[in-house]
Amino acid sequence: MSFSNIRIVLVCTTHPGNIGAAARAMKTMGLSCLHLVSPCDFPSGQARALASGATDLLDRAVVVESLAEAVADCEMVIGASARVRGISLPLANPRDMAAEAIGEAARGQVALVFGREDRGLTNEELSLCHRQVHIPADPAFSSLNLAAAVQVISYELRVAAGAGSEGAAEVSVSDRERPVCSEHMEDYYRHLRQTLDAVGFFKSCNPDRIMARLRCLYARSRPDQSEYNILRGILSETQSALQRRPTD
Amino acid sequence: MSFSNIRIVLVCTTHPGNIGAAARAMKTMGLSCLHLVSPCDFPSGQARALASGATDLLDRAVVVESLAEAVADCEMVIGASARVRGISLPLANPRDMAAEAIGEAARGQVALVFGREDRGLTNEELSLCHRQVHIPADPAFSSLNLAAAVQVISYELRVAAGAGSEGAAEVSVSDRERPVCSEHMEDYYRHLRQTLDAVGFFKSCNPDRIMARLRCLYARSRPDQSEYNILRGILSETQSALQRRPTD
Repeated sequence: MSFSNIRIVLVCTTHPGNIGAAARAMKTMGLSCLHLVSPCDFPSGQARALASGATDLLDRAVVVESLAEAVADCEMVIGASARVRGISLPLANPRDMAAEAIGEAARGQVALVFGREDRGLTNEELSLCHRQVHIPADPAFSSLNLAAAVQVISYELRVAAGAGSEGAAEVSVSDRERPVCSEHMEDYYRHLRQTLDAVGFFKSCNPDRIMARLRCLYARSRPDQSEYNILRGILSETQSALQRRPTD
Repeated sequence: MSFSNIRIVLVCTTHPGNIGAAARAMKTMGLSCLHLVSPCDFPSGQARALASGATDLLDRAVVVESLAEAVADCEMVIGASARVRGISLPLANPRDMAAEAIGEAARGQVALVFGREDRGLTNEELSLCHRQVHIPADPAFSSLNLAAAVQVISYELRVAAGAGSEGAAEVSVSDRERPVCSEHMEDYYRHLRQTLDAVGFFKSCNPDRIMARLRCLYARSRPDQSEYNILRGILSETQSALQRRPTD
């Protein structure tokens, strides 16, 4: 079993101890690839202390400034969220998520993203995700510690990898091409926004809201390369058609 | 769901912070009954700090001197152990254990027993158990933190009790609106084809093939009503923008 295509991304972690404890949680389950987005305090002695024997994960941790950078080369980005927001991402429980993630990791990079201790992920960060995973918790006290959440998710990944659920997940994706990576989809969203602006679509509505809705819609369908080419082609043709129109 | 018949027993815990973190882990999953066998340092400010909002579990914790006392009234005692010893207890993984424990708890008291941070449970303590549960871990680094182990077991108990999957399933449906019906999507595809034709997109490719690809893409995302309105709106605005262009 290799988890080399699965990364854990911690976004803007406040307490370095949680980074260390998360690294330990990962390593016990065989995960080793840790990305940190703008950690408040890292490297840190407290992180090392809490990592116990998992300091090698901290040493090799990739530190970047934005979630977009952390997941640029990923084909599947899954956001862990305690709260369910008004964002229509597909929501899975950890078990189903793990089965899907293990299947996806057989052919591309997969990221599991964990937000801030106090506020989780922003809507903008969630908009970079294709899926949302919700760890079931008592509604009366749902404040899972960050490292505890990483532990539960890593545990489910390990169980899924060992349970032969790979086969089932593989079938569901093998009948179509692989989805394009996040970086390309970001290019598409920029192009789409530009085109909608040129068409005059934003004149009576909030562009950010509209783009957030459209991102969810395309995140659910995860276009492959030839679909992506069609989508980009439509935008280019629309722009050309508008330019043939004299400026008015 | 009531976990009133399920207790977590921590045996001779060295670090009070682990007691607090374990209480927090329990409470997030809806467990509330904590027994402590000869804790090294309890009550403790550090335990309270790590318990976060779960100090009520610490206040009500039952402190006893021996494991035998802690499980005296239990019909099923399950020992958590990182290592598999030379003891012929039935060994279960957390998932199977949780299913069995939930079943047993419907009629009697069940205890989940966690040993010392460094050495786990003694053979004498294991001999008080009816079952052993082993959390799968990387053999190269199997040192789960005590609270992390409590988190995984409590999580499995919650999922087995039905709250986990039910909750997630419920949310995933109510989380977003229902997709629009096929009839509306057919209207959209007609509108899309018309617009792509007006834009000149079909001049170098087969419209049927392109439309078939686009149908697959939108079928995967299954737009809800407000997304549908956005998609239709984009087409209408594009058509209007093109009509502002004089016929050439």
